[in-house]
Amino acid sequence: MMTTVCVPDAGLAAALADLGDLDVLVWDGDGPPPPDAAEIEFLVPRYALQPWSPAQLAQLPRLRVIQVLTAGVEPWLDRVPPGAVLCSARGLHGGTTAEIAVAGILSHLRELPRFAAQQARHEWDRHFTTTLRGRQVLVLGAGEIGRRVAEVARIFDASATVVGRTAREGVHALADVPHLLPTADIVVVALPNTPETTGLVDAAFLAALPDGALVVNVARGALLDTDALLTELTAGRLYAFLDVVDVEPLPSDHPLWSAPNVVITPHIGGGASGWEQVADRIVRAQVERYLAGKELANVVVAGY
Amino acid sequence: MMTTVCVPDAGLAAALADLGDLDVLVWDGDGPPPPDAAEIEFLVPRYALQPWSPAQLAQLPRLRVIQVLTAGVEPWLDRVPPGAVLCSARGLHGGTTAEIAVAGILSHLRELPRFAAQQARHEWDRHFTTTLRGRQVLVLGAGEIGRRVAEVARIFDASATVVGRTAREGVHALADVPHLLPTADIVVVALPNTPETTGLVDAAFLAALPDGALVVNVARGALLDTDALLTELTAGRLYAFLDVVDVEPLPSDHPLWSAPNVVITPHIGGGASGWEQVADRIVRAQVERYLAGKELANVVVAGY
Repeated sequence: MMTTVCVPDAGLAAALADLGDLDVLVWDGDGPPPPDAAEIEFLVPRYALQPWSPAQLAQLPRLRVIQVLTAGVEPWLDRVPPGAVLCSARGLHGGTTAEIAVAGILSHLRELPRFAAQQARHEWDRHFTTTLRGRQVLVLGAGEIGRRVAEVARIFDASATVVGRTAREGVHALADVPHLLPTADIVVVALPNTPETTGLVDAAFLAALPDGALVVNVARGALLDTDALLTELTAGRLYAFLDVVDVEPLPSDHPLWSAPNVVITPHIGGGASGWEQVADRIVRAQVERYLAGKELANVVVAGY
Repeated sequence: MMTTVCVPDAGLAAALADLGDLDVLVWDGDGPPPPDAAEIEFLVPRYALQPWSPAQLAQLPRLRVIQVLTAGVEPWLDRVPPGAVLCSARGLHGGTTAEIAVAGILSHLRELPRFAAQQARHEWDRHFTTTLRGRQVLVLGAGEIGRRVAEVARIFDASATVVGRTAREGVHALADVPHLLPTADIVVVALPNTPETTGLVDAAFLAALPDGALVVNVARGALLDTDALLTELTAGRLYAFLDVVDVEPLPSDHPLWSAPNVVITPHIGGGASGWEQVADRIVRAQVERYLAGKELANVVVAGY
C-alpha cells in the first residue's frame, strides 16, 4: 500500500525519491490542492513561522504526521488534528542559532559597531574593550543552542550556568533563575516558547540583572516583554541583542528599532546556508521510521 | 641581597608588594630614570608594541630579564643586551585574541553589518546567511589563539585544520599550507612573526584560496602582504578581517580603509578588560622564579 507524503519543494522530494511505497506530492499549501491531497498522511510544511490555517489542514482528512522544519512548534500546537502527531525539527537550526547568539555577544563585547564607524572615518583609535573572560553567562535553555553557547563561553574563559526546563547534572531548574540573575553579565534566552516560558523575561527579571548586562534573545519574541526591555534600554541600564521579537516582522514604526543599546537581526538564527541538506536528512529518517511503523523522533504533540 | 625590579605601573608594583628581597621601581622608560635605575635586573616594559630604544635600555647596565606583556616579541629581538633573556607573555592575550578572530568570522558570515544597516532603516528583511556549519577553517598557529579558534569552529560544525611551526598530532606543518589553501573557506593567521612567517600570506598564498574565502589576521601585520590583499579585495574575490596591519596606526590616507570587503579593527585582540589581573599573575610567577633561581618561563631569547 502506498503512503502519501507532502513536501514543500522539489529538493525534499528528491531526498525521498528512492524510498519505496511512497507517493510524494510537492505542495506548499498555497493555491488549489493537488488531486491526491486527500491521501496525504505525512505533511512537511515549508520552513516558516506561520502554521497552515485550519482550512488548509481540513483538506487533509488522512493526516497522521506533521513534521515541521522549525525547532519551535508553538504556533502549531492548536492545529494538530485528532489522530495526528506533531514533530519538531529539533537540532536542525540549533547550531546556527547558537552561532548568531555568540556573534551578537562578541560583537557587543568587542564593540564591532564602534570600530566599523571608526573605519568609515579612517580612524585608528586603539580602545580596549570588554571580553567574555571572567564573565558570568547565564544560558536559559539546555538544548542544542544552549549547550553550544555554554561551550563557547567556557572556551573564552567565561563561567556558563545552564538552566533547563528539567534540572539535571550541570543544568539548573527554571526555579533557580531569580537567584542567578543578579550575577549574570550576559543572559542568553534559548528556551522553547511554552506556557511556562511565555513572558519569562519580564520587568522583574530585567530589574534583577546588574547594570550593563546584555540580554540575548534567540528563542521566540514571546519569551520577552518588549515594553519592559524598552524601559531598561532607554534608561541606559541594559543592552540587548534580539534575533526574535514578539511581533515579526517588526513594524517600521516600532520604537525598538531606534532604542539605544539594542541590536536587532530579523530572525536569521536558523535557515542559514546548508540547512536544507540537514532538513533532507531529518525528514528522510522520519519518513523511514513512519514507513517501518517505528516510533517517530521529536514528537511534541501525540494524537489522541 | 635585594633584587631591583622595574614595572610600568602601580598595579603591577602592588602585585609584587609582599615578595621579600625585592626593590620595586615604577617607571615606564619615559622621562629621567629613577635614582636606582642602574640596579634594575628585571624589567617589565609597559604593554605596547614598540620596544624600548637602545638608549633607554643602556640606562640599565645590570639588566638580566626583559619580561614583555605581549605574546609577540619580534620588535624586541635585536634589543636584548648581552647576558639578558627576553620572555614573552605567552597566553596573556590568547583568549581575547581568539575571541576577536571568532567575532570577525561570525560577523562576516552572519552579515551583522548588513543587518545593522537594515536596523538603521527600520527594515525587517529576513535574508538567510552563510554559516560556519560545513565550512573548512584553516588555522595557522597552534598556540592559545589557534587552539581556541579551532575548538569554536568545531562546536559550530565546521572542519578545522590547524597548522603549527612544528608538525605533531593534530597539527600540520607549515610546508603543508599550499595544499590546504584551495579548500579553505576561512584562513585565520595566528602565528608569531618570525623570519619564517614574515610575508607568509603573499600574492601566491591568496591566489590559491577559493573565491569568496575570508582571510583573518590577528597575528602581526608583517605576516600579510597588504598590497597583494588589496588587489584581491578590489577584485571582489576575497574578504578580510584585519585586527593587525603592517603599519600601525594605519595612516588615514591608506587605501585599505575604504577597500571593499574588509573589516579593520585597531589591534584590539589583546588588552581587553581584565588583562592586567592576568598580567599580574604572570609577572609575579616569573619574578618568584627569578628570585628562587629557577628556570624562567617563556624564554624567547636566552642571553649569551
